Amino acid sequence: MTHNACSLTHIRARYAETDQMGVVHHANYLIWMEVARVDYCRDAGFRYRDLENQHGILLVVTEVDCRYLSPARYDDDIEIATVLTRANHRAVTFQYEMRSVPGPGEGGKARRIATGHTGHMFLNRELRPASLPAEFRSLFGIPERQPQ
Amino acid sequence: MTHNACSLTHIRARYAETDQMGVVHHANYLIWMEVARVDYCRDAGFRYRDLENQHGILLVVTEVDCRYLSPARYDDDIEIATVLTRANHRAVTFQYEMRSVPGPGEGGKARRIATGHTGHMFLNRELRPASLPAEFRSLFGIPERQPQ
Amino acid sequence: MTHNACSLTHIRARYAETDQMGVVHHANYLIWMEVARVDYCRDAGFRYRDLENQHGILLVVTEVDCRYLSPARYDDDIEIATVLTRANHRAVTFQYEMRSVPGPGEGGKARRIATGHTGHMFLNRELRPASLPAEFRSLFGIPERQPQ
Amino acid sequence: MTHNACSLTHIRARYAETDQMGVVHHANYLIWMEVARVDYCRDAGFRYRDLENQHGILLVVTEVDCRYLSPARYDDDIEIATVLTRANHRAVTFQYEMRSVPGPGEGGKARRIATGHTGHMFLNRELRPASLPAEFRSLFGIPERQPQ
Repeated sequence: MTHNACSLTHIRARYAETDQMGVVHHANYLIWMEVARVDYCRDAGFRYRDLENQHGILLVVTEVDCRYLSPARYDDDIEIATVLTRANHRAVTFQYEMRSVPGPGEGGKARRIATGHTGHMFLNRELRPASLPAEFRSLFGIPERQPQ
Repeated sequence: MTHNACSLTHIRARYAETDQMGVVHHANYLIWMEVARVDYCRDAGFRYRDLENQHGILLVVTEVDCRYLSPARYDDDIEIATVLTRANHRAVTFQYEMRSVPGPGEGGKARRIATGHTGHMFLNRELRPASLPAEFRSLFGIPERQPQ
Repeated sequence: MTHNACSLTHIRARYAETDQMGVVHHANYLIWMEVARVDYCRDAGFRYRDLENQHGILLVVTEVDCRYLSPARYDDDIEIATVLTRANHRAVTFQYEMRSVPGPGEGGKARRIATGHTGHMFLNRELRPASLPAEFRSLFGIPERQPQ
Repeated sequence: MTHNACSLTHIRARYAETDQMGVVHHANYLIWMEVARVDYCRDAGFRYRDLENQHGILLVVTEVDCRYLSPARYDDDIEIATVLTRANHRAVTFQYEMRSVPGPGEGGKARRIATGHTGHMFLNRELRPASLPAEFRSLFGIPERQPQ
């Protein structure tokens, strides 16, 4: 895919992710965004774990926001559309839109669940700022020679 | 306490809350904010669970944001200062500041971990908009007769 | 499938599921068993959520054990084989075997991660003992007229 | 405390720990056991994180079981009694009993929630078997010169 394409992830809401309101607990949406980011990387042509294991580069979260629009429920099929909205060799930003989509033969329409975004920096294992290795830059749509 | 006072919560970071970066996973900060909110309510004079159990009123999360300033680590003593920044009979907003505070005899200074806020609406058990019962309004510093 | 067949579930280990040892935190295996149980039910011909929503029957966990044989790691493809080992209209027992399976083109062999079992009772919404509705019994391989 | 004494931990059940049955999700009991183990170590005279950070020794979980006797509910005050039931320089076993205890002025009796045990091995950071450093052995009640 191209770097500004949209990556799609499907997650089945787990029982353990619900709370006593009978809906998915709001903190789990951040974990779902993380799963969606990993899928984004896979679609972009690399495995995030290789970035960590082979290059010692961590994509840490520096900020997050989420707006909850409609409750997700246990066993819902959640579709997450992920877009990279900003990227340079120091930091990237992702945007997410989550929808609960009806199963085959269930009828009904997809329902918007939440929107959000996460901001990230590249750090090394000592948690100090690092630069994304050149070979990964094009995968994030970052020009090779980037004005700092 | 008065409704605009600051409530303080202490949480010991759990091993299960860390991830393979060696720091607390960022989604847990939302759970810590929730623990801090419950303590805020207790300090304000009521138990959140009574609001749910006895009055059928749920304080659902409609939006959240968090800025991560410095990593929290396993076994850190995390202090969360919680302030109610907006309140009417339909919705409230809380603000949080989290610090990692050194134990007795450890030396060092408190370190700011994160800041964030959460927005909420009052809903009934059917997850439809509800109004905070009058007897709770003063606890949130909401005037009895509130202009809509 | 027949009631004593083996149901297979695949779970991709999430980053949030790791801890600072660099492996999946052991409590998550119980959540994976739960995901596997839900898949078992789906394979057996019904959705667990329908049992709850339409019949008011809850399959609560009364006991669990797990033996950890080899660490599961972030992004591992975990395959869970689930077998129903005991079933009557009051209680059921599941057994699980988890393996980390190499991706296509990765080489290597599947690695046994853990084994475990969970015991369950059927309860109603008031958490009192209930009997599995007749229409579900054959799906669990329970004879219609069962000696008590 | 002496090594065979009982360590007591108090945990307030978090909202995020509940599920849509309206009770604490069963996987969280393993996390509570972990919190209780850390407190056991603190009571025994050391911090578990020092064992990891300063000595590179990890206390990994090799097996766990739990019997669920009565549901824990949101905001319950859970008391966990932890006992070390077996210890040598390679492996240790803990036993836990969890009770929900009424708050001051609430009346009612403590209710047994669950019992369980966890088995552990000492590993180094490469997750290979290691031996508990001599200076920690007496804290676990292990004789200095132990027959293998």
